[in-house]
Amino acid sequence: MELQFLGTGAGQPSKKRNVSSIALKMLDEINEIWLFDVGEATQHQILRTNIRLRKVTKIFISHNHGDHIFGLPGLLATRSFQGDVGPITIYGPAGLEQFVRTALKISRTKISYPIKFVVLEDGGLIFNGNGFKVYAEKLAHRVPSFGYRVVEDDRPGELLMDKLAQYSVPNGPLLGKLKNGEKIVLDNGTILDGNDFLGSNKKGRIITIIYDTRATPAIAQLAQNADVLVHESTFAGNEADLAHSYYHSTAVEAAKIARDNNVKRLYLNHISARYLGAKAKKLENQAQKIFANTRLANDFDRIVIPMKGEKDE
Amino acid sequence: MELQFLGTGAGQPSKKRNVSSIALKMLDEINEIWLFDVGEATQHQILRTNIRLRKVTKIFISHNHGDHIFGLPGLLATRSFQGDVGPITIYGPAGLEQFVRTALKISRTKISYPIKFVVLEDGGLIFNGNGFKVYAEKLAHRVPSFGYRVVEDDRPGELLMDKLAQYSVPNGPLLGKLKNGEKIVLDNGTILDGNDFLGSNKKGRIITIIYDTRATPAIAQLAQNADVLVHESTFAGNEADLAHSYYHSTAVEAAKIARDNNVKRLYLNHISARYLGAKAKKLENQAQKIFANTRLANDFDRIVIPMKGEKDE
Ligand SMILES: [Zn+2]
Ligand SMILES: [Zn+2]
Repeated sequence: MELQFLGTGAGQPSKKRNVSSIALKMLDEINEIWLFDVGEATQHQILRTNIRLRKVTKIFISHNHGDHIFGLPGLLATRSFQGDVGPITIYGPAGLEQFVRTALKISRTKISYPIKFVVLEDGGLIFNGNGFKVYAEKLAHRVPSFGYRVVEDDRPGELLMDKLAQYSVPNGPLLGKLKNGEKIVLDNGTILDGNDFLGSNKKGRIITIIYDTRATPAIAQLAQNADVLVHESTFAGNEADLAHSYYHSTAVEAAKIARDNNVKRLYLNHISARYLGAKAKKLENQAQKIFANTRLANDFDRIVIPMKGEKDE
Repeated sequence: MELQFLGTGAGQPSKKRNVSSIALKMLDEINEIWLFDVGEATQHQILRTNIRLRKVTKIFISHNHGDHIFGLPGLLATRSFQGDVGPITIYGPAGLEQFVRTALKISRTKISYPIKFVVLEDGGLIFNGNGFKVYAEKLAHRVPSFGYRVVEDDRPGELLMDKLAQYSVPNGPLLGKLKNGEKIVLDNGTILDGNDFLGSNKKGRIITIIYDTRATPAIAQLAQNADVLVHESTFAGNEADLAHSYYHSTAVEAAKIARDNNVKRLYLNHISARYLGAKAKKLENQAQKIFANTRLANDFDRIVIPMKGEKDE
C-alpha cells in the first residue's frame, strides 16, 4: 500500500505544486488505485508516475471547487483510450455528475466504460468490500466538503505452529479448520480449539485524507488511530483567525489532530503558493513542535504504508 | 507580433506535447494576447512562459473536443485571481457556453470579469477592430470545427521626406495633412497633394490557424497569402485515406495548401503521439519536399512575425 501525492498546492497550480490530487495504490492488496480529488492536469501528473489509469477504479472527491475537480473530464476521457477498462465509481458532493456529464456531452466524448456517481449527503460508511471500508464525514468548508477514512479489514492471526507441534495434527483439512478458529477432534480423541492456536488479529491499516476545511470535530473522528493522516494546511500556525474566516486550517491545527488522535504520521498538504522554500519549511517546523512525525507533502512524494505487526504491538 | 505554441499534441497529453493551445501575442500592437484553443493544462503551460493571463482578451475555439477545451474553466478561474482584469470574449461552436457556465456553477467559481460568448455558425468576418480583422470558416471535422484567419489592417505609407525636401514645408500641421493624404497650399501658392508624397501602403500581416479537419476548400480561402500558416498534421503523408476517414489531415496536405496559396511559413501542428523523434522529423521532411519553408511545431516554440516591407516588395 502506497500513497502518492499528485498535487499538493492550493487554489491554483504553481510551478512547484499542482492542484489537488492524491493516489492510494493498493496494487498488492486488490490491484486497484484510488484517487482523492482530481484537479486540472492530474492526468498530466500521472504521466510522470507508474500509475496506469486502467487501475483507477474509485475516485473520492472532497468538494467541488475547481482546483479539486477540473481534471475529471480529461482523466476520464484518457482512461477510455486504454483498452479493456472496467467501470469507475466517483464519490462526492452533489453536482459532480452534472459537471462531468455536461463536459463529456459538449465535447462528444465517448467513454468506453460505465461511470457510477455516488452522491454523499451526510457521510458514514460509504464503501465496504474487498477487504476495505471507506468512511466519509462532512467537514466545515464554504461549500459541502468531505473527509475520507480508508480502513483495511483486520486479518485473522496466523496459526502458531510451535504451540501446535506436540499434537501431531496431520497436514490437510484439519489444519485449515484450526486456521479458521474451528474445533477439531484428533484420532486419539483430543479436542483442539483453533482459537487457542491463533496469533492475535493483524490490525488493518488506516489512511485519513482531510482536504479543505476549518477545524471541526468530524476531523478527529476520521483521524482516530490513522497510520497516515493527510491534512490540509493552507495557513501557518499563527494565522488561526485567517484560516477560520477562510474556512481553512493551519499547520498547527493539523498537528494537534495528529497528536490527540493516536496518528502515526502526518502529512501537511494543500500548501498555498505564499509558502515557498523556507516559508513552507516553517509550516513543517511549526507542526513538528506539536507532532514530531510531521512532513510537508510535495508533488510526487511516495509514502509506503507498511503492514502492521501483531495487535498490542 | 509573436506566435507561441502551448500545446502541439493530438488527442491526449504526452510527456513531450500538451493538448492544443496557441498564443498570438500582439503586445506591441494592441497590448493583447489571443488564444487559439485551450486544452487541459494550458494554464500550466502558460506558467512556463512570460504570458500574463490578464492580457488574454480573446479566445478562439476551433471545436469542442475535450483536448481543445477542457482547460477553459481552470484558465478563466485563475485569470480571475489577477487584479484588475478586463472582459474576455470566447468565439467558437455552440455548446461552449453551457460547458463553461456549468463548470463555473458547480465549482461555485466567481469570475471577476465579464465573459462574452460568440457562437459561430457559418463563419465569415467575426471581429473587426483595433487594427485587426478575424475571419472564420467552417472546416470538415466529425463535429463543427472552425479555422481562423487573423488579418492586420494595412498601414498607410510614410511621408517621403526626400521627395518633399525641395518644397520647404514647415514642420507642424501641414506635414500632418500631407501624411493623411490631404491637399495643402504653401505660402507661395504651391498646391501639394499628400498622395504624391506617400510611400505605398504597408500590408498587414496574416496568420492562419487550422486545427482539426480533413482537406476541404475552406482551408485555402483562409490560408491565402498568410505570413504564417499553422496546420494540423495528425497523419503522415502516405496516410491520406486514414486521415480522410478520421476527419484529419496529413503533413503533405498541409504542405500543398501552403505551396498553392502563397503562404510564407508553414508550421505542422496537432502531432499524434505515434510520431516521436525521428518519426516526427519524417512528417516534417515529407512536407518540406512540397513546401520548403515548413517546420514541425513543438511546445513553447516562439515565432516572431516581422512587419512587412513596402507593397510589391
Ligand atoms: Zn482547495
Ligand atoms: Zn484534436
